[in-house]
Amino acid sequence: MSKRVAVLTSGGDAPGMNACIRAIVIACEHLGYALIGYQHGYNGLINQEYESLSLNATHNLIQQGGTILHSARCEAFKSVQGAKDAARNLNTLGIDTLIVIGGDGSFRGAEHLSQYWPGQILGIPGTIDNDVAGCDATVGYYTAIDTAVSSIDKVRDTADAFERIFLVEVMGRHAGFLALNAALASAADYVIVPELFESEDAELKSIAAQIEARRQLKGPVSFIVVVAENVWPGGLSTLAERLSSQMQSEVRPVTLGHVQRGGSPVSQDRLLATKLGTHAVALVETDKNKVMVGEVNHKPVEVPLKATWENNKPLDDCSLSTMRITMNNRY
Amino acid sequence: MSKRVAVLTSGGDAPGMNACIRAIVIACEHLGYALIGYQHGYNGLINQEYESLSLNATHNLIQQGGTILHSARCEAFKSVQGAKDAARNLNTLGIDTLIVIGGDGSFRGAEHLSQYWPGQILGIPGTIDNDVAGCDATVGYYTAIDTAVSSIDKVRDTADAFERIFLVEVMGRHAGFLALNAALASAADYVIVPELFESEDAELKSIAAQIEARRQLKGPVSFIVVVAENVWPGGLSTLAERLSSQMQSEVRPVTLGHVQRGGSPVSQDRLLATKLGTHAVALVETDKNKVMVGEVNHKPVEVPLKATWENNKPLDDCSLSTMRITMNNRY
Amino acid sequence: MSKRVAVLTSGGDAPGMNACIRAIVIACEHLGYALIGYQHGYNGLINQEYESLSLNATHNLIQQGGTILHSARCEAFKSVQGAKDAARNLNTLGIDTLIVIGGDGSFRGAEHLSQYWPGQILGIPGTIDNDVAGCDATVGYYTAIDTAVSSIDKVRDTADAFERIFLVEVMGRHAGFLALNAALASAADYVIVPELFESEDAELKSIAAQIEARRQLKGPVSFIVVVAENVWPGGLSTLAERLSSQMQSEVRPVTLGHVQRGGSPVSQDRLLATKLGTHAVALVETDKNKVMVGEVNHKPVEVPLKATWENNKPLDDCSLSTMRITMNNRY
Amino acid sequence: MSKRVAVLTSGGDAPGMNACIRAIVIACEHLGYALIGYQHGYNGLINQEYESLSLNATHNLIQQGGTILHSARCEAFKSVQGAKDAARNLNTLGIDTLIVIGGDGSFRGAEHLSQYWPGQILGIPGTIDNDVAGCDATVGYYTAIDTAVSSIDKVRDTADAFERIFLVEVMGRHAGFLALNAALASAADYVIVPELFESEDAELKSIAAQIEARRQLKGPVSFIVVVAENVWPGGLSTLAERLSSQMQSEVRPVTLGHVQRGGSPVSQDRLLATKLGTHAVALVETDKNKVMVGEVNHKPVEVPLKATWENNKPLDDCSLSTMRITMNNRY
Repeated sequence: MSKRVAVLTSGGDAPGMNACIRAIVIACEHLGYALIGYQHGYNGLINQEYESLSLNATHNLIQQGGTILHSARCEAFKSVQGAKDAARNLNTLGIDTLIVIGGDGSFRGAEHLSQYWPGQILGIPGTIDNDVAGCDATVGYYTAIDTAVSSIDKVRDTADAFERIFLVEVMGRHAGFLALNAALASAADYVIVPELFESEDAELKSIAAQIEARRQLKGPVSFIVVVAENVWPGGLSTLAERLSSQMQSEVRPVTLGHVQRGGSPVSQDRLLATKLGTHAVALVETDKNKVMVGEVNHKPVEVPLKATWENNKPLDDCSLSTMRITMNNRY
Repeated sequence: MSKRVAVLTSGGDAPGMNACIRAIVIACEHLGYALIGYQHGYNGLINQEYESLSLNATHNLIQQGGTILHSARCEAFKSVQGAKDAARNLNTLGIDTLIVIGGDGSFRGAEHLSQYWPGQILGIPGTIDNDVAGCDATVGYYTAIDTAVSSIDKVRDTADAFERIFLVEVMGRHAGFLALNAALASAADYVIVPELFESEDAELKSIAAQIEARRQLKGPVSFIVVVAENVWPGGLSTLAERLSSQMQSEVRPVTLGHVQRGGSPVSQDRLLATKLGTHAVALVETDKNKVMVGEVNHKPVEVPLKATWENNKPLDDCSLSTMRITMNNRY
Repeated sequence: MSKRVAVLTSGGDAPGMNACIRAIVIACEHLGYALIGYQHGYNGLINQEYESLSLNATHNLIQQGGTILHSARCEAFKSVQGAKDAARNLNTLGIDTLIVIGGDGSFRGAEHLSQYWPGQILGIPGTIDNDVAGCDATVGYYTAIDTAVSSIDKVRDTADAFERIFLVEVMGRHAGFLALNAALASAADYVIVPELFESEDAELKSIAAQIEARRQLKGPVSFIVVVAENVWPGGLSTLAERLSSQMQSEVRPVTLGHVQRGGSPVSQDRLLATKLGTHAVALVETDKNKVMVGEVNHKPVEVPLKATWENNKPLDDCSLSTMRITMNNRY
Repeated sequence: MSKRVAVLTSGGDAPGMNACIRAIVIACEHLGYALIGYQHGYNGLINQEYESLSLNATHNLIQQGGTILHSARCEAFKSVQGAKDAARNLNTLGIDTLIVIGGDGSFRGAEHLSQYWPGQILGIPGTIDNDVAGCDATVGYYTAIDTAVSSIDKVRDTADAFERIFLVEVMGRHAGFLALNAALASAADYVIVPELFESEDAELKSIAAQIEARRQLKGPVSFIVVVAENVWPGGLSTLAERLSSQMQSEVRPVTLGHVQRGGSPVSQDRLLATKLGTHAVALVETDKNKVMVGEVNHKPVEVPLKATWENNKPLDDCSLSTMRITMNNRY
């Protein structure tokens, strides 16, 4: 009998989630599976809110940011009752496979559900933060780098015009992937990431030393520090004040914010999303279960859901050594 | 004898300032005038910091954000001594005409200088805020609208995904041009501008009423409020808190910040900058003095510098009536 | 009794047509009018193909290129029978007002229809070519300039790298608005437009003279000629061959093509479309008929449909004089 | 004694070449090496045309398209005399290491030079075509995909509006990387690449079958075929004619052309260029010679120059299987 598949998006939305949904629709159509989309993340699962997804839904979908299935947080789902309700609803619709597009929080939810529902659960990593172990990149990460980089390119115009110090905060939750790569790709002068952060004093000393060195060489200079969110105690304005007082200069903080979550996905995210979506559907008739479908070294892999949050995902060595040469960071 | 022209950029930088410098270089070359560029705004005038500008400087300049002459504030220039120093420096170099690209603060500086220097002074409006009377648009304004709009387009992706309320603060100093037009062009749901702002309570009541109306119609909805900077007492976070508590919903504030100042100028700014730059140079051998060169109804005009800040520049009627229809604002 | 309005898009599609449809939907809702959208241009009128348009259709519509109502040519509509069929269909649905978004060909169609249908007909100028008299700009024109300019910016990168001569053909039908403004805004070296074109020999001589002058000054140089479509006899490749043989250099032709028709509209097109759409609906209960709603000097105007093609629309003087200074064209 | 390094860019320019030059400058500065840049590809080597490169050259360089060292073809260099002249010039300047940024043609030139010059020669893959074996991606390839995709996104707007068939030709020389990935990422309906092309008839039959199938389902539809350059005998217009006559429909050909070579590099190209540039400089004091520095599975590798053109570089399996599912191609 033909398989019945359900898909939902959960957690922070990311560019490419729609491209992934599109690929899942097409791949299900290709293999003759029925497909529904649950709305509002796990809330839809609890409230049995869903829509049927067909090829009609896919036109002009690959290039849209956000997620047509909507996303949301769902406290209720963390309870036993929530998971049981979801399991009952999945059974009512005869769902064989549930595909969850989201980050590690979403995968924890999926693992929780699996205790109460015997069906197949597949994850696809979708978050701009890239903080999911077991895959080289998450869907949305490439676009977020580009968004951050083109914003920093703009900030540099005004930083140069005024020869001013700017702090630019980028997202990343508790990981430095986005900050490090956005800093490298925008030729920022310094970057602060949680993986390398030691102390406020050490960072300030290092930044100040480099600005001083440049000033002695060239006079007034622009200087851009990229700062990962959640790193600096007290936040960006605290850093701005301390640096300003230390350098006797104005320091302008810029928080890129939710702009980084949106936008039409860049090609690399569309490609990644399309590959992962089709690969997930290709697993429907296998016995793979409770795994995330990711890409490692340009090939699809399956990783136990638990490994996606239990394993550590370090910053890339090659990026770090490049940073040490091109940025003279203190790290 | 051939004329000697100087140019400087002053005040907040704006996309298209370089396109304007390029046009001035080419037009001076065309008419056989010598041209120098003063650096760091009026500071360069006081410190006699300048460079000769030739056609070599113009290659690939039209598309660059920022200003190759740099900009800066200059407190010293406001004093009598500052203006006298500048006058002496201009005379030393035999300058006939000084062209100042900037906003109304820069033009006040130019007017101040004119009391101590008898040469020709011409202004060109360059600021993203469009708050200069006597011209339809200032150089940089069109690009800033586009930057704000593409940021709000991105915010809408995530607002829709989460059906959330977002506040987006855009620049504009004390004017609502940027906020109003960015809101209209991004299909925002509400806009708060200084020209129309009445009271916090009135705005909150109006926003809440509209969100309620939509919720009753559709359930959870996204809602984007564009807020001009310097309008809301206490700033964006204060508004976010009050609205959040009133609506019993999360409200996310996004401050676009200095990103709005940078970026490659859009075509309309390149065209405006090029026209104004060439027109300013065309005035060099006339007796026009202490005027700003602007564009009104697609034609170049000259406006006394004083009129640029003494006259009121109201929001466009047609934009306002369009806003009333497409946004249901309370205004 | 409440008015019934119909809208259609006709002729070459242009970015901003959807923004215009959105504004019409909202304005009709605002005034309590019923609104339908005819599909596939005048074909929909003949075949009674239409859909009801409500606020639901407007979400995320402002930023979409193309037209959700589709467009098409329609030979049948030029006949008496075609117009009569359309009139009958309009009467069947009780339509009071038909709004046509398109270029002058579409307005001729509207005029033709008016001989057989007594209702109100309003036009809105929508074409990237800007070749509609009676308005400063047509919806789509601003975006097309930006698309052409960012393409030429890219071509310049490779032209500079190889110090090569490039020809870039831009659209415009039989008018030079797009070519002239794209050339000015991209700092192209030369532009050929139908309004100024004299003879192949004269153009070639002028181009060659300028390349020679630069080569003598600097050695190998890049050189970009922007060419309006339909100007050069034999097309771009003919010009490339002749110029190549004359300059003893490779000459690369690039035809931007239909890329210029698409894309998310830039802010200026979204604003223009929104203003014109709301203004058109504001005329529904007036006795204005057979007029196009345009914008002149930032104010809405109504122009008899016939005037849109019978009157001449010259290139802007200020752009031309700027061109003469910044491009050294032979004109 | 401190090392002396030279760098040149050769062959078709690609976005990211400047980012690569920047990284080489910074890495040389970091290690205390002297660095010069030869101009105009191998021509500069023969004519001893060069400039010293210092940190001053690197400001705002990472985001620029093209190459500040210029590129060119060089027939003379293929001769024994050309290579001997180059060797003599390198010796005159005491160069220890020559870094060549380019494609396989450039690497053949480097191999040729190595017969006459005993110094160290390092290659870095820079071409939009990605047709260099031994590395996952070439510098410029990511940007070219994005440029092609955003052009195809625009074409889709107008294709949808008119429900028309479009052919879009993308670059790639004799490889299908760019075409395949641009087609996948733009949700094109069909793609023709040299690696899979069988015969004109087979392709036409397959395309026609799919258009027919869609028409029967939906009526008029848009359909976009992405075609790699140099595949279709007679070129794009021949294909357009045959398809048009077969489908009884207009078919519009669009050739993206040199636009694909330019533009500010996207983040992934900036990162790749920066990593490869710094890694190449890290090899200067090793005995690695006549190798290309590439990235495989996110790690730097060194590949003998000869392997870059002698080995086959197939299309990625995962992309092909995704294509088979999402495009229904006949392959």
